[in-house]
Order: sequence, then C-alpha cells, then structure tokens
Amino acid sequence: MKPTMSDETVAEERAEFRSAILAAGLLVATGVDGLYQRSGKFERVVRAVEALASRSAGDKGGSQYYFSPIMAREAFERTDYLRSFPDLMGAIEVFQGGDDEHARLLRAADQGQEWSQYLTLAEVALCSAACHPLYSSLTGTLPAGGGNFEVQGYCFRHEPSLDPVRMQSFRQHEFVYVGEPDAALQHRDRWLDRGLDLLSGLGLDVQAEEANDPFFGRAGRMLAANQRATALKYEITCPVSSSEVRTAITSANCHESHFGDSFGIFTADGKPAHSACIGFGLERITLALIKRHGVDPASWPSEVRGKLWP
Amino acid sequence: MKPTMSDETVAEERAEFRSAILAAGLLVATGVDGLYQRSGKFERVVRAVEALASRSAGDKGGSQYYFSPIMAREAFERTDYLRSFPDLMGAIEVFQGGDDEHARLLRAADQGQEWSQYLTLAEVALCSAACHPLYSSLTGTLPAGGGNFEVQGYCFRHEPSLDPVRMQSFRQHEFVYVGEPDAALQHRDRWLDRGLDLLSGLGLDVQAEEANDPFFGRAGRMLAANQRATALKYEITCPVSSSEVRTAITSANCHESHFGDSFGIFTADGKPAHSACIGFGLERITLALIKRHGVDPASWPSEVRGKLWP
Repeated sequence: MKPTMSDETVAEERAEFRSAILAAGLLVATGVDGLYQRSGKFERVVRAVEALASRSAGDKGGSQYYFSPIMAREAFERTDYLRSFPDLMGAIEVFQGGDDEHARLLRAADQGQEWSQYLTLAEVALCSAACHPLYSSLTGTLPAGGGNFEVQGYCFRHEPSLDPVRMQSFRQHEFVYVGEPDAALQHRDRWLDRGLDLLSGLGLDVQAEEANDPFFGRAGRMLAANQRATALKYEITCPVSSSEVRTAITSANCHESHFGDSFGIFTADGKPAHSACIGFGLERITLALIKRHGVDPASWPSEVRGKLWP
Repeated sequence: MKPTMSDETVAEERAEFRSAILAAGLLVATGVDGLYQRSGKFERVVRAVEALASRSAGDKGGSQYYFSPIMAREAFERTDYLRSFPDLMGAIEVFQGGDDEHARLLRAADQGQEWSQYLTLAEVALCSAACHPLYSSLTGTLPAGGGNFEVQGYCFRHEPSLDPVRMQSFRQHEFVYVGEPDAALQHRDRWLDRGLDLLSGLGLDVQAEEANDPFFGRAGRMLAANQRATALKYEITCPVSSSEVRTAITSANCHESHFGDSFGIFTADGKPAHSACIGFGLERITLALIKRHGVDPASWPSEVRGKLWP
C-alpha cells in the first residue's frame, strides 16, 4: 500500500511512537540507534508471543532448538549471507596477540583510533537469521518425509535506525521444514495462514504480502526481482510505528534447494533438500501490540490478554 | 581444593560428560568448540533457574532489564574490558563499502583468505558481562540509597574449549546494586548467602571461594593478586564436568568505584558510586544440575523439580 502521508508525517509518527515507548520505560535507549535495553514488562510480552507461537504448532512443531546469538563462521559463510546482504552482517574479531601487541592496541584505543588492525577474524559470526545455524546440523540424508524444527535465536542486522521496529538485535521464532519440494511449499502456506490467524486473533490489522529480501548492490536488484517474480517470500505486515506504512512482523519463505545445496542436505531419495520457514519477529510483534493496545499490557483487552497469558 | 586426580583423568571425565550430554540431545555440537545448539529440554531448565533466581529476590530485585547480546562499543570501551581481558572479548565489524569492494571481499572469501580488511569496527561490541550495558544508563546522580537492578543477557568469552562448562556464548542473570560503598558490600554478601541457599536447595554440592578474574598478561598478574588480597570477588563453585575440579557457577563481586568512575555515576552526596553484583551462570547451573541429577529432568528428585517448576 502506497502511503498517502508525506515522508515527513511518517517520520513524525515514528518519532512519537519511539518517545511513547521510552517514556513508558518499556525500552531504554542506549545511545546507539536501533539498540535498546528491554524492560521486564517488554520481555514478558515477548515471551508470551513466543509461547503462543509454540502452542499454535500443537505437537507438530518438531525438534526445538534455541540458538546462541553467534554461529560458526563456516556455516555463516555457507548461507551466502556475505554475498547477498554484506551491508547487514556482523563479523566477529578477537585478539590473539601478546603483551606488546596489547600495549599497541590500547594506545590506539586511548587515542580514539581504530584498533581493529590488532584483531583477527573469529571462528564465529553474529547469527544472521534464526534458522541459519540449523542447516549445518542436517548435512547428510534426511529421513523419509523430511524434518520439522522449531528454532529461536537473536539475529543481528546492521541497519541503525530511529524507527523502533528496526532493531539491530532482535529475536526470530521460526518453524522450519526441510525435505521434499511440495511439502516445503505446503509448510510455508499452512504457516502463513496460521500466522495470520494467530496475529489477527491478537487484534492486529495484518495482511499477507508478496515480498523480497533487500539483496545488496547491482546484482542484488536482479535477485530481488526474481524472488518476487517466483513468489518465494511473503510477509505478514501490520501498521506499527506509522499508521500508514506497514511493517513486516512475520516472514514466510521458500528457500527452494538453496540451503540443501549449500549444506549438502539430501532427501531420502537422494535429491537436494528444499526448505521453508516462517519467522515470527518477537520484538516487532510486541511493538505492534503496544501500538495497537497501548503502553500498559495490564490494560490490554481481556481476549488479547487471555491468548497471551492463558 | 587441589585435585588428587591426574590431569588426564580430569580430561577423560570432562569428555565423558560432554558425550553424555550430546548423546541425550540436551545440547548439539556445532563444529566450533564451546558453541552449542540448546534443545528445548535444556532451555526449559535454564528458564526455570532464571525464574527461581527472580523469585528469590522477593520484591527487592529492583528494575528488570533484559539486554541484547550486543552493547554500545563506547560503553564496552569504558568498562576497561579491552585493557583487562582483551583475549576474551569479541569486537564486531561491519561492511560499509560499495559494489567494487564487495566483489573484492567475496573473492577473498572464496579463496579462503581473511576478508576482514574490507570491514570497519561497528558502533557495537559483543556484550562482555550481563551488567556491563547497565552502567551507561546510570550516568549522573543516583537517588539517595542508590539503586537495585535485575539484569540478564548473553555474554561472549573467546575461550574455545571442549569442557562443556566453558561456553563461548552463555547467559548471566545478575542482581546489581549501585550506590553507597557499605551497601555495595552488604549486597554482595547477602546475595552470596542467598545464592548458596538457592543452589544447595537444588541438591548441588556448592561452596563459596575467594577468587580472581583472569586478567590478561604481565600487568594482569598484579591486578589478579590485588583482587584476591582485597577479597573483592567470590565464586560459588560446584563439581560439574569433573568430580574433583570445582567450577564457578555463580560469581559475586564488589567493583568498588570502578564503574562509578568510568561512567560518571555519583551517589546523592556527590561521591563516585560503588557497585556490586551477583551473576548466576544459567548454562553452568543447568549443567551442574544435569551432572548431579542425570540427563532427564523429568526424573530429577521431586523436591528439586518442585523448586524449579512450582
């Protein structure tokens, strides 16, 4: 939906929402755009959304994994994130020198100079998407019918912003299927419907929209157009910071054999596995609920509270 | 306690414990030493320990904050972590170039070369201790009597190890006091007793021991000796991976005016604030419970289960 509001009005709406959240103490600013301290009150909503998503899977969510905010760099490189979204990623560097190098590092830091020349790339990287650490554990041949997985983790996106929905560090709660091509498509579509039900049941004005990832650079424009043309990615959107510009609060994607190929995952009959996932953006859904129902969860409508805290 | 076992026997015990945890599916190996995927079963124990610690504070825990696994780099630099523990820290780098630099980065990565020369230090760093992101929000003058805070966050320590208690990424749940010097000491000592009660109530063989942080390098040896001589740091230890070598599962520290000075935090009467904290190591306590009571939480003693899941 093209907003009828001017960009300026949208920016004002976002600034007002941010101020309201900070004034209510739900989040605390840190001096870095897009990075917040979460209050206990905010976290209780996050965990209620997480538990609601878990319950909505019935006993069909599959094996549950909670990932660290960091993942093996080797697996990170295999996801192709470096190729597609270099501007969003976070690499990790560590110090492996001795006393003399340490003294030089401190001198640089004290003088306000960059001190990263004394560091080396670590064997880990910041987690780019909640399902990315999963695939390296599946290398090999899957059982017939493939596998279902419920995973959660902190993700990092380097996109500093004053819009509170655009955090640098946030959690995705995902339901992932890895296996047959048809079953992957069905998984995405079934979960897209389930996600719409779950979120509209919380009083949110949601809709599903075809979407594309923000692929980087010149080559990225083609990748984005192709992703949209083949309808691989859908987002569940909702007005959050602005009443007219909708924000994705959940995303449902078919990866075709992208991860199957990269990680050497095969179906029982020896073909590269397809995969699909739905990712509930826990912080964004929490912010959407705050925008819709107000800054005090204790005074949200009883049917919403009943679903979050049954 | 000096172990009477040989180093080899201790290493064997640790390897056996690691194998048992992986075989039970409580944790999944990732190919990087000290980095695991946590099962839903493991995570449920972590969250039960977290909730038990929260309840043990009664209504005296103070303001609750849940921190992101990353923190502002400026605040990270102020903690002095770069000076004291450079070998353990994780810096974050991001890519801010265009198409041409991206092509060079990918070429380096494809050829297995280090690609970090194309990156720049981010305005964020990996969180070094759960209480570190707190202090920058307190710059200024505290109310009379100081403040209490209950905080939690993922911490990063670059110390790859096959001992499962030594994770690179783990959560601390902390209770922090910032204010008067006497009250800081009392906070630490009261919480040390409360921590011993809480953990021995779960059937763990715990004791409090004077300790020191692993300060880096030549200068670090003096800092460590000084910390021990002034009895600023205590650890609650317990046999975890090995039956004879005790591991710290909780740590209680007085920081004197270290953070007050660095972050410009003052008491109501204008003196640099002192601070103290206790940090419950959620993953280490979970591992201690698994070692003590077995790999299946459903069959743990009913009094332990009753405390964790009341």
